[in-house]
Amino acid sequence: MTRIAIVGSGLIGSAWAVSFARGGCEVSMFDTSRAVAAAALSHVARMADQMAGADLLFGESADTVCSRINVAATLDEALSGADHVQENVPEDLEIKQAVWGELDRLAPATAVLASSTSALLPSKFTEALSGRHRCVVAHPINPPSLIPAVEVVPAPWTDPQVVERTALLMERIGQTPIRMEREIDGFLMNRLQGALLQEAFRLVDQGIVGPEAVDIGIRDGLAPRWAVSGPFETIDFNAPGGVREYVNRYQGMFMTMAQHQKDPVDWSGPVLNRIEQQRRATVPLAELPRAQARRDSRLTALMQFLRGNRA
Amino acid sequence: MTRIAIVGSGLIGSAWAVSFARGGCEVSMFDTSRAVAAAALSHVARMADQMAGADLLFGESADTVCSRINVAATLDEALSGADHVQENVPEDLEIKQAVWGELDRLAPATAVLASSTSALLPSKFTEALSGRHRCVVAHPINPPSLIPAVEVVPAPWTDPQVVERTALLMERIGQTPIRMEREIDGFLMNRLQGALLQEAFRLVDQGIVGPEAVDIGIRDGLAPRWAVSGPFETIDFNAPGGVREYVNRYQGMFMTMAQHQKDPVDWSGPVLNRIEQQRRATVPLAELPRAQARRDSRLTALMQFLRGNRA
Repeated sequence: MTRIAIVGSGLIGSAWAVSFARGGCEVSMFDTSRAVAAAALSHVARMADQMAGADLLFGESADTVCSRINVAATLDEALSGADHVQENVPEDLEIKQAVWGELDRLAPATAVLASSTSALLPSKFTEALSGRHRCVVAHPINPPSLIPAVEVVPAPWTDPQVVERTALLMERIGQTPIRMEREIDGFLMNRLQGALLQEAFRLVDQGIVGPEAVDIGIRDGLAPRWAVSGPFETIDFNAPGGVREYVNRYQGMFMTMAQHQKDPVDWSGPVLNRIEQQRRATVPLAELPRAQARRDSRLTALMQFLRGNRA
Repeated sequence: MTRIAIVGSGLIGSAWAVSFARGGCEVSMFDTSRAVAAAALSHVARMADQMAGADLLFGESADTVCSRINVAATLDEALSGADHVQENVPEDLEIKQAVWGELDRLAPATAVLASSTSALLPSKFTEALSGRHRCVVAHPINPPSLIPAVEVVPAPWTDPQVVERTALLMERIGQTPIRMEREIDGFLMNRLQGALLQEAFRLVDQGIVGPEAVDIGIRDGLAPRWAVSGPFETIDFNAPGGVREYVNRYQGMFMTMAQHQKDPVDWSGPVLNRIEQQRRATVPLAELPRAQARRDSRLTALMQFLRGNRA
């Protein structure tokens, strides 16, 4: 039985707990905030129920999954016997460094230490640790219980076997690991998202399209195709000779565009007023949580569909 | 009853025919190739059956939809009484210019002339036409019968009412129009795809990830979320204060990345060998059509799901 310690049991930590427990692991959660720790189990139960309703617990019942999750009174207790530690504390370098010092000191010598950070490179908070070879980033798209992709990112001193062991654990619990060769700002997914957003802000800034057009073009255009075949798979399908023929045919068009996609736009300039105006006209700020909940429930249904229709 | 002329009845033209007919229009198809014209109706029938099976004919039967589609013997006959002409001839400027000269001469003065081109700006083949004010691009993601998004792109001399009339027609037949203020290389969707691909090629070229990681990061990570909420909607949901707070929090991270995303990579360099190798190891070239057919049938099922789960 694989034992998991979840350190930081807010929204991300709780979702990780469900994901690991669904995969058959024994999970112990810890949070320095008593209020967050107290809320964690009921949040876990709510998520597990929702996932069960969408048939996303891989045939297990919500009760069975929840029975594998407990809340520890101390960090020491949570880490006791852990094979894998998943850290989800705030994205603040000083906090991370302090917490990681403790994790390395208290966790069993054989445990892998993984961070859910999206914003900090693993080298920034593991360099000084004596166990830095066992430290890695495992960054999910939230919530990991719903979205499979997880970026596994080594620091320069991370043992390659730690990357591999983490990737295999992710596969075992139903996530899809993205193996990165080395750390880089934004990892993979935020770099791809950033490149796309950069062009989206530019097109609105230049008055070529309104903000809604961008959402339509992705939501009702590119994303459905990408949800069944990734970007390289997609262009590989788009020419009879595969990706090589696609590149031969279309590289010229994309290189012409690239000449005008070099300089970043100031996202917080006038373009932000235009985007915010369109968003608030569509969803007033007070309605945002409700609209987000509707989006999340559609996303849950979509993931149920996609899980049931794997290639 | 709106009358549509489809000029060029290959794969794209046939898919357009199903889309317009499903929306209640009377469709007349024409192709200069007798072989293509002869194959068009059976291709239309096959598509209509597949769409009916996935409940994508908006409650109409395949027979009813097909009964609204005929093949004309001459261009003149196809254009007779047309309200909207949808052109799908090869992406060759000389061919386009020749065909558009004919369309402008032969189509009723009140007809809108729309091109499915993805690669040519509308100004390139409409400038010399006396009816150039009624010319526009209506570029679908293939096949339009399945994917809703359609880019509506004016030339500098296109009458804004022609853009609006085309967008409304698209809405009426169940497409989602993207209204562009002016023409630009790659329009909206290929510009967004290009920006994302550029970064994908760069990350593989630099040895940060393998090609498969890119496909996982989009297919199992970003795309499912984007298929229910577009990129601006998504970041608007990702901070309690909406898009403005998101930009305040994360612009710094994205601007740091942008500094390293300026120079285009040579897609046909060594990086292409690596991508092609991975793709061909996954799907040998001879298997590509079969893999694509599987992808398309999953995409059809996904579109049925998404159409039935609109916000």
